[in-house]
Amino acid sequence: MAAQEVSNKQVILKDYVVGSPKESDMEFTTSKIALKVPEDCDGILVKNLYLSCDPFMRGRMTKPERASYVEAFTPGKPITGYGVSKVLDSQHPNFKAGDLVWGMTGWEEYSLITSAQSFFKIEDTDVPLSYYTGILGMPGMTAYTGFYEIGSPKRGECVYVSAASGAVGQLVGQLAKLAGCYVVGSAGSKEKVELLKSKFGFDEAFNYKEEEDLEAALRRYFPDGIDIYFENVGGKMLDAVLMNMKDHGRIPTCGMISQYNLQQHDGVHNLFNVVSKRIRMQGFIVFDHYHLYPKYLELILPQIKEGKVSYVEDVAEGLENAPSALIGIFAGRNVGKQLVVVARE
Amino acid sequence: MAAQEVSNKQVILKDYVVGSPKESDMEFTTSKIALKVPEDCDGILVKNLYLSCDPFMRGRMTKPERASYVEAFTPGKPITGYGVSKVLDSQHPNFKAGDLVWGMTGWEEYSLITSAQSFFKIEDTDVPLSYYTGILGMPGMTAYTGFYEIGSPKRGECVYVSAASGAVGQLVGQLAKLAGCYVVGSAGSKEKVELLKSKFGFDEAFNYKEEEDLEAALRRYFPDGIDIYFENVGGKMLDAVLMNMKDHGRIPTCGMISQYNLQQHDGVHNLFNVVSKRIRMQGFIVFDHYHLYPKYLELILPQIKEGKVSYVEDVAEGLENAPSALIGIFAGRNVGKQLVVVARE
Repeated sequence: MAAQEVSNKQVILKDYVVGSPKESDMEFTTSKIALKVPEDCDGILVKNLYLSCDPFMRGRMTKPERASYVEAFTPGKPITGYGVSKVLDSQHPNFKAGDLVWGMTGWEEYSLITSAQSFFKIEDTDVPLSYYTGILGMPGMTAYTGFYEIGSPKRGECVYVSAASGAVGQLVGQLAKLAGCYVVGSAGSKEKVELLKSKFGFDEAFNYKEEEDLEAALRRYFPDGIDIYFENVGGKMLDAVLMNMKDHGRIPTCGMISQYNLQQHDGVHNLFNVVSKRIRMQGFIVFDHYHLYPKYLELILPQIKEGKVSYVEDVAEGLENAPSALIGIFAGRNVGKQLVVVARE
Repeated sequence: MAAQEVSNKQVILKDYVVGSPKESDMEFTTSKIALKVPEDCDGILVKNLYLSCDPFMRGRMTKPERASYVEAFTPGKPITGYGVSKVLDSQHPNFKAGDLVWGMTGWEEYSLITSAQSFFKIEDTDVPLSYYTGILGMPGMTAYTGFYEIGSPKRGECVYVSAASGAVGQLVGQLAKLAGCYVVGSAGSKEKVELLKSKFGFDEAFNYKEEEDLEAALRRYFPDGIDIYFENVGGKMLDAVLMNMKDHGRIPTCGMISQYNLQQHDGVHNLFNVVSKRIRMQGFIVFDHYHLYPKYLELILPQIKEGKVSYVEDVAEGLENAPSALIGIFAGRNVGKQLVVVARE
């Protein structure tokens, strides 16, 4: 018997992007998909519920000149990214129809996932399901491994988080408070700065766009210097931070969103501080740390359920709004974790 | 009885230096010194034998605007630096007249050392005494701690050393060979490049001044990338290296000699590789690691005595040649470890 075919709306990358991505770099198409995994495939067929907009996706829009840590998108094909999905059919032993999962899916209504082994089955649904695109998904694990595994925090240390109201930053700040640190965040609007203080419990927060001299701003908030800088931004911010680090400081280097749309990245001039202050600047990618996911859930789920950790989402409704939601994160338009609702169940 | 007073020739820093230091930034003076430690001082009075010219001394010539990891020199006073000295008089329990020591002394014939606790007593004199300014002194410990403690080498890894014929670099290359690594060095002349291959056993070496495209040069020598970059240089070299690092590479960051005479350091543009390749870039200062000195001597002394490790020195004769020797290291004029003989005993 032939499988039922349905129409499948998709977001397509038209061509590789140079500079700032625009909505017009993407287009919609509608194809047909059978809601069944083919006989010879051990994958899963999913209905996509929530799609995640993440900064690393910008790198995937660039023409691949050298191998990077994530593959480039293929022009003419649907964009892919993290999402929460419902399994409609499975030939993979780990999953069955009806399961909720998160992992790397397509920007479309339905996806055939051929490498289902990288998906996580969602066991705990006593929290908003969309959280698995954020605090309970890749961004959450990024904050956790960057702060704890790379940052090696100690009680009483001084922590600075840039892009602090974003998907990762808001959680880093709260983890730092849980670890007994003093934490300051920066963001790009008054509203975001308010959120950092009122909602996420940052000790201090400032709007970097209102500071003429970032170095002086950081000196104001960290008169004795910074122990841990959770780096999301790069460029001028990193330069200002380097001048304000303490001896033996750590810089878990998560991303450099200020640089992603530039063809040549800004020069960083103050790296000699790495020597003189014995700084450890260490890049990390969450992929390498997913074995810690169960340990992380054990820590964070009770904190969420007891209301001790908050998570703010910026929700775009409908796949048709996905391109503008994605573009928005590079302009800082999102307040909190940007995601797209494709369907609620 | 009054102590014997002798004349004491000294090298004085005239004023803080901007840009490239010149011989004329220093001048000679002759004062008088009593060859006895004053009653109320628990120091040592030493005769200086060998003085060390080290890149970090450039930083001490700059007007201090913010606290740095080493104090600035005081204009009008003798320059200080590492040296090998003979104790003439001591009121410090660790030392007695006749002892040979190394530590931070003055650029002069005789010095009164008031903080003698930071000096090391030389126990093994079965090697050239001048080695205690180099392979058996601060540069040796710098190579050792940077390569082993910060670099975490594994057998078979690919190691790149810049400024490779210098006081630290020549030893890093040999330590890397002892550790079973593939090692390539760069230096700034044909003579130095020859030395790297013929004397120090580097697998490959190149003259960075003859390479139009440093990134391509490194790709030639490291087609699969670099695991450990021992960073002595900074600037453009670091940018080229970042493009050629392997995933999970380490950059023990020892110094950035290409930058020390610049008023604004060159911008480094390729730092995003720190994220995408999960690089650990870690600064270190040998001061923090001197507790490992006995362990290091245990490793290196037999290697030297068995002729398995070589050390090349560039020796300036006489205190009167000290300023030009020091200036020379910033222009790369030295071949091997630059030192000054003040007296041989």
